[in-house]
Amino acid sequence: MYNLIEGKKISEQIKDEIADEVKKIVSKGGKTPHLAAILVGTDGASETYVASKVKSCEQVGFNSTLIRFDENISENELLRAIHDLNEDDDIDGFIVQLPLPKHISEDKIIMAVDPNKDVDGFHPQNVGKLALGIPSFISATPLGIIEMLKRYNIETSGKHCVIIGRSNIVGRPMSILLSQKGSSGDATVTLCHSKTKNLKEIANSADILIAAIGSKEFVTADMVKEGAVVIDVGMHRTESDKTKSGWKLTGDVKFDEVAPKCSFITPVPGGVGLTTIAALLLNTLFAAKNK
Amino acid sequence: MYNLIEGKKISEQIKDEIADEVKKIVSKGGKTPHLAAILVGTDGASETYVASKVKSCEQVGFNSTLIRFDENISENELLRAIHDLNEDDDIDGFIVQLPLPKHISEDKIIMAVDPNKDVDGFHPQNVGKLALGIPSFISATPLGIIEMLKRYNIETSGKHCVIIGRSNIVGRPMSILLSQKGSSGDATVTLCHSKTKNLKEIANSADILIAAIGSKEFVTADMVKEGAVVIDVGMHRTESDKTKSGWKLTGDVKFDEVAPKCSFITPVPGGVGLTTIAALLLNTLFAAKNK
Repeated sequence: MYNLIEGKKISEQIKDEIADEVKKIVSKGGKTPHLAAILVGTDGASETYVASKVKSCEQVGFNSTLIRFDENISENELLRAIHDLNEDDDIDGFIVQLPLPKHISEDKIIMAVDPNKDVDGFHPQNVGKLALGIPSFISATPLGIIEMLKRYNIETSGKHCVIIGRSNIVGRPMSILLSQKGSSGDATVTLCHSKTKNLKEIANSADILIAAIGSKEFVTADMVKEGAVVIDVGMHRTESDKTKSGWKLTGDVKFDEVAPKCSFITPVPGGVGLTTIAALLLNTLFAAKNK
Repeated sequence: MYNLIEGKKISEQIKDEIADEVKKIVSKGGKTPHLAAILVGTDGASETYVASKVKSCEQVGFNSTLIRFDENISENELLRAIHDLNEDDDIDGFIVQLPLPKHISEDKIIMAVDPNKDVDGFHPQNVGKLALGIPSFISATPLGIIEMLKRYNIETSGKHCVIIGRSNIVGRPMSILLSQKGSSGDATVTLCHSKTKNLKEIANSADILIAAIGSKEFVTADMVKEGAVVIDVGMHRTESDKTKSGWKLTGDVKFDEVAPKCSFITPVPGGVGLTTIAALLLNTLFAAKNK
């Protein structure tokens, strides 16, 4: 029988720990951590994510500031706003919710954020520190997955981890973290992607399989070894006649057939997605403590 | 019969191309690329490396400046020297020859170099760009190996590359480069290290095997698949009664027994080592052109 890795439980545990630490900091006369978020335009998904981040800040006792801009804001105006946040001593960390309108270069925006306030961990300097094993901001999805593995006591040392997908915000940093020296690392990591041949065979050799392909129910039972740990990073809206809304969320893993083979597996929804905001709060606390 | 990957040939080819490009730049009234090197103390190996870098600059028509400091230089004095080079418009790139005396923090020194002049590719910002697939300075050994694969038309796309060793200057960047999108990338990469179990089995599945363990003649014939490409990054002094000097260089690969199984293999000496300086020159040219 497989064990479900419950994102909600992990996320609440992390938030409780952060709330305790904030209380301690404030009771010693320290400054309340302060996260700011820039939201450009009114994209539905972005609105939801940002609202959820702001609410989570309240839950743990952080201050939060939401800065909204019209979708017609110029790149220069946005850069000025970032410069102001970089200079603002009260702001410990901030994020610019992606995606941005097409007339604004996301790369330029990411490069403009002070690496010491870059709680999304997107700035090259933070990605580089991650690769070099220097403490830094780790982007939220990989950090959330590491927290899941830790808190379910899933051993990574000496295990074969297979990661499917080489994106800059999930697959790549995940491959680096798991092969890094130390706890929650020391795994032998194989990074697979669209050009990989005999993927089924490689996936089948995985003790820990991380699916971050962005392709609905891509991972099937025949790709998974008996007793493997499966982490599903995918998130797809699928039509459904069994829900009121008419749709449901599914992942990169065909859960019903894969789960029976697993020792541990994350569900979608209720898995990786829920830990990412907790990870953002961890980064903000790290920023506040390292100032 | 195996093919030898000749580092000397590759290195001379690269230097010839750079020399041609320097001539073109200068003939159009452009500035001669200028590399500076800081050498602290009088370590024998460091003296040899730096002398060889300076000589290579002359070969390709670069200007070079060697700045020497006594091994008792304080960290602050060295930081000031780096600051001066950062500010010096005539210097396109510079290196600080490692290792440094123990009273100086190498991390601090590396962080002080302007990322735009960091032709060793050691600054976290350049490592991060590498991981994100943004053009940047790539540290010399991995860049040299990529040039070898390119110039011997060794296909990497879809191949299984196994890298043994996860150092920050070889194994880690190599694993990132080979799995990156595009030419000389698109490989399925497995990164192995001291905590890897059943290493022999994994190595045996490699189409391209990169040995960067730092352990003399670690890779034996039973670890290598018939027809594999083997790249040997090791460099060890071994006593020998067959040479005048009383010693010879050997690599991480037991060459005599491994070579007959290979399609391509690098010798030691005469392999990877020779391409690293050429790679440093490539980075310096890149710096000069991107100023």
